[in-house]
Amino acid sequence: MGPLSRRRVLRELLRAAELDALLVTDLVNVRYLTGFTGSNAALLVHAGGEQVSRFCTDGRYLAQSAVEVPDLQRMIERSGVLVLVAAAAALGIRRLGFESDTVSVDAHTALDEAAGDAVALRRAPGLVQQLRMVKDDAEVAALRAACAVADAALADLVAAGGLRPGRTERAAAHDLDARMRGLGASGPAFETILAAGAHSAIPHHHPSEAVLARGDLVTLDFGALVAGYHSDMTRTFVLGPAAGWQRELYALVATAQAAGRAACVPGTELAAVDAAARDLVVAAGRGAEFLHPVGHGVGLQIHEAPALSATATGALAAAMAVTVEPGVYLAGRGGVRIEDTMIVRDLIPEVLTCTGRDLVEL
Amino acid sequence: MGPLSRRRVLRELLRAAELDALLVTDLVNVRYLTGFTGSNAALLVHAGGEQVSRFCTDGRYLAQSAVEVPDLQRMIERSGVLVLVAAAAALGIRRLGFESDTVSVDAHTALDEAAGDAVALRRAPGLVQQLRMVKDDAEVAALRAACAVADAALADLVAAGGLRPGRTERAAAHDLDARMRGLGASGPAFETILAAGAHSAIPHHHPSEAVLARGDLVTLDFGALVAGYHSDMTRTFVLGPAAGWQRELYALVATAQAAGRAACVPGTELAAVDAAARDLVVAAGRGAEFLHPVGHGVGLQIHEAPALSATATGALAAAMAVTVEPGVYLAGRGGVRIEDTMIVRDLIPEVLTCTGRDLVEL
Repeated sequence: MGPLSRRRVLRELLRAAELDALLVTDLVNVRYLTGFTGSNAALLVHAGGEQVSRFCTDGRYLAQSAVEVPDLQRMIERSGVLVLVAAAAALGIRRLGFESDTVSVDAHTALDEAAGDAVALRRAPGLVQQLRMVKDDAEVAALRAACAVADAALADLVAAGGLRPGRTERAAAHDLDARMRGLGASGPAFETILAAGAHSAIPHHHPSEAVLARGDLVTLDFGALVAGYHSDMTRTFVLGPAAGWQRELYALVATAQAAGRAACVPGTELAAVDAAARDLVVAAGRGAEFLHPVGHGVGLQIHEAPALSATATGALAAAMAVTVEPGVYLAGRGGVRIEDTMIVRDLIPEVLTCTGRDLVEL
Repeated sequence: MGPLSRRRVLRELLRAAELDALLVTDLVNVRYLTGFTGSNAALLVHAGGEQVSRFCTDGRYLAQSAVEVPDLQRMIERSGVLVLVAAAAALGIRRLGFESDTVSVDAHTALDEAAGDAVALRRAPGLVQQLRMVKDDAEVAALRAACAVADAALADLVAAGGLRPGRTERAAAHDLDARMRGLGASGPAFETILAAGAHSAIPHHHPSEAVLARGDLVTLDFGALVAGYHSDMTRTFVLGPAAGWQRELYALVATAQAAGRAACVPGTELAAVDAAARDLVVAAGRGAEFLHPVGHGVGLQIHEAPALSATATGALAAAMAVTVEPGVYLAGRGGVRIEDTMIVRDLIPEVLTCTGRDLVEL
């Protein structure tokens, strides 16, 4: 599958939604449907086929778009989206879907004026995100590569003594990032979280000048960006022999994470994945210290559909890419989080992040 | 000036716009007004003062928000923005501004339902962005630090032979990024552009496995992120003795860039800054090869208000932070771009990026 096939599948969704075309303005969706990697573009996917579909970007991307989007008629205009909408009537479009979940209120007003009387704008939220949930083989390959880079970088970091007491969180995080780059990542998938000691109780801690110390829990939540795809993995270590409470906390989270992972098979309700992990934490009396949903979809974005939360609706399907990342956080003391990126498959999920999950005392 | 003073100034704008409060959902604006650096938050700035204003984030940021936002009443809720809107009526709010330039059509519908009949949502685009254009002393200091890191990293890269023929674009770009980190940046301000040879004619080229070769133009467009603020600088070198056409192209762009820089004083119309540089390029017969606006505001975002483009309206004011980056691109041969980050000041701008602009043959 490539962009061409993805546009073909999208056209089926458009016909089912009784839309003549979809105006795609979300840049990640544009990339998914065209392969274009620049920072300004819009796409008109006409249900009637490729010949009446249009891609638009600005002059900075004249040469790049010719290479990346050779198969669509291209227009080079700075205010491309308005030009596309103004062209809709001439392309026979009457009902034009737009991404109402990302198009702003003011942008919608401008689109409506540009569209004129012959074209009716219709809300069409999440259509491309719905397609993006299920990964094709090329996407799984990219995710696998991104996860392999993260696994290797962490192994190298640990082997080189990169988490030794005395180092700062920032130095260790930069070391890990550099190793991911050295292994072929275009960069970290997001700002690497490296949280030591009491900081490990802050789920999204920014690495600081705090110094790693013997006895600390150290949480690393990080990923590699490879070919536009993001890996996402969390591991928590103890520096030196683990205290009783650390051991207990780790065992609880590891058990909850295994339960969450095992739930990632086709047909499981999204909320049931969250419950599979959360129920164990609640039963242990730590429910109030599990501060976030259990996981999320991952791909061209670090967080994408489906959400694996207590309030999510819908079910998992084969070839969805998701993370499972329960965590328990004891304010002022420390926390444990364990996370893997995986592909939903029949019977058992394919876990792409392979670093071991047993408690490691460094 | 800190977040508290910024909220005070915003309240004056609210009263002038006849709004009882502003619902701030844009995360960068939330950061500007509160200091909060997490990935989910909303803020209700009440014209009536701090006591009736509210900050909201989710459970992941319980501890972090207590540290970063000690001075506002905090609510911890995952769907915080709806909770804030639902609370508006009880806080005496009748006319509630929302950021219609970033709030999506679907999100607006949900806000409208949550607000109930007593509260009228009013479009209030760009209010905080308007404040953010003019930098306070702490912001200028952060920009200065970010620019100093970029200058030093480039000098180190060049001195270490980091741009020698035989190296790949990617290796050189990663080297530059690592040097910025080593000098204290939390990361690059955006994906570093390093484009050699014909690639230098692609303004937003992604560094590739292409190998730097003698005779190449090499363009580096990059910046450092320090304390949340972005620097932005472009330099173009020649590897070895410059050919006649390279010398000519460089001289044209350097002259245009100097004219653009000189125009950055209070009172200059935004479009006139673009024209100051562009007119020289057009006069040289290269207007069609100058593919983008001359510059942009910079700060908490790499691109922010004001735009310095031919169609922009408004004028520069003292203490605005902007970049000036004309470029001329000869498809298939190569291009030259030169860019600085500067603060608008009376008489002459304060240029924060100090690396020389004379043609350098490496």
